[in-house]
Amino acid sequence: MRVRYAETDQMGVAYYSNYLVWFEVGRTEYCRSCGFTYAEMERETESFIVVAEARCRYRTPLRYDMGFVVRTRILELRRRTMKFGYEILSEDGGTVYAVGETRHVVTGADGRPKSGPEKYLRLLQKSNE
Amino acid sequence: MRVRYAETDQMGVAYYSNYLVWFEVGRTEYCRSCGFTYAEMERETESFIVVAEARCRYRTPLRYDMGFVVRTRILELRRRTMKFGYEILSEDGGTVYAVGETRHVVTGADGRPKSGPEKYLRLLQKSNE
Amino acid sequence: MRVRYAETDQMGVAYYSNYLVWFEVGRTEYCRSCGFTYAEMERETESFIVVAEARCRYRTPLRYDMGFVVRTRILELRRRTMKFGYEILSEDGGTVYAVGETRHVVTGADGRPKSGPEKYLRLLQKSNE
Amino acid sequence: MRVRYAETDQMGVAYYSNYLVWFEVGRTEYCRSCGFTYAEMERETESFIVVAEARCRYRTPLRYDMGFVVRTRILELRRRTMKFGYEILSEDGGTVYAVGETRHVVTGADGRPKSGPEKYLRLLQKSNE
Repeated sequence: MRVRYAETDQMGVAYYSNYLVWFEVGRTEYCRSCGFTYAEMERETESFIVVAEARCRYRTPLRYDMGFVVRTRILELRRRTMKFGYEILSEDGGTVYAVGETRHVVTGADGRPKSGPEKYLRLLQKSNE
Repeated sequence: MRVRYAETDQMGVAYYSNYLVWFEVGRTEYCRSCGFTYAEMERETESFIVVAEARCRYRTPLRYDMGFVVRTRILELRRRTMKFGYEILSEDGGTVYAVGETRHVVTGADGRPKSGPEKYLRLLQKSNE
Repeated sequence: MRVRYAETDQMGVAYYSNYLVWFEVGRTEYCRSCGFTYAEMERETESFIVVAEARCRYRTPLRYDMGFVVRTRILELRRRTMKFGYEILSEDGGTVYAVGETRHVVTGADGRPKSGPEKYLRLLQKSNE
Repeated sequence: MRVRYAETDQMGVAYYSNYLVWFEVGRTEYCRSCGFTYAEMERETESFIVVAEARCRYRTPLRYDMGFVVRTRILELRRRTMKFGYEILSEDGGTVYAVGETRHVVTGADGRPKSGPEKYLRLLQKSNE
């Protein structure tokens, strides 16, 4: 990914809330690497992985058009909650721009917590072993 | 409204896509001034006023923390389509930052065009006389 | 403030990164309530209050057009670093939608840490007593 | 590119202002394909290609995680103004999600119109022959 002009602010660096958007792109790609799409999971099971907490530490500012990668991993996986960890890195991995984590609960379409759908939890679990 | 830091870019001015967001805030407030909320209309009638075309001319750049108002009006109102016009103005009305318009079609939850809900069309119509 | 349509996601609630934008609006208004604007401080002193860490706990989802307020306070104020705390509340204060905090370092235009400008630190200090 | 969750709204489709962000990504990549980066041009020549007008026609809604490409071309290239045209297409080119155009003026850091930097205008010109 590259920093979009839209994502910069008048300080000339990527605005701090965009990192949370990139974390989400990381989660989406993480699911894909596990063999399913988050879109399909949401549609098929009417389950939503809602963010309960987010945290980001900003180390080195990113500027317009700089390339970066999001390295995503699962920190904790339970039936109703999970935690993801993220690193925003330069393409060669030599610079850490930011690190963060998000905590999630699984809910139904009504917003009530529930157990995550078996099939998908298992795919996430397998990736994590 | 005031320009948020998040809305600036590295040129030091409000990024150009934000004006379309402000137009939408203008539409929301226009509905409220007509005696209903767009949220309630969407919920009650499962009708959506979808954007089919948007256009904006940028006259004078807006900077962080500058105050502005959106003046919204209806340019055209039919059963299935409508057009809104917008001006982004300084609080004293002396400076025109941007002007624009959006064209809309009414659809159901399935995305198919349909006639707008009578009750709400009438409220919009009345405001426009 | 009200949740903008642009700020919702397909789950029908405000997307999680927007809370960080609202925190920033809270900081901007906090400065104004202390008797200066952040814009003016940045311009006059070429000092930037850069975000080093951000954290948000999401309690109750916010939906389109819901009104809310940001209650901002200083948690810690030193010459080179500061911490802000935030609550996103319903207009009557009865519901807590989210709580969060941000940690900052003061830098010059070159991105290097430096002491915050006296005059403005004092105004922040006074508000905090 | 893929539609990010952040870019969807409660209607379940990509929010309309994001298309302007994607147009900008299209411009950035267009410059790269001409042999320079817009970032470098801005830095080296203190010239900015400011948006004076933007327009988008929305044909078929895009949903979360759908892939798409931006096809960008120059519609008009003068010393002080230029026009870009865009198509947002499915990856196989079979579906047109949106078409649009933007008109620009070249300015200096002070915001005043000026002639675009020769070297870069020539690179854009060459790509357009």
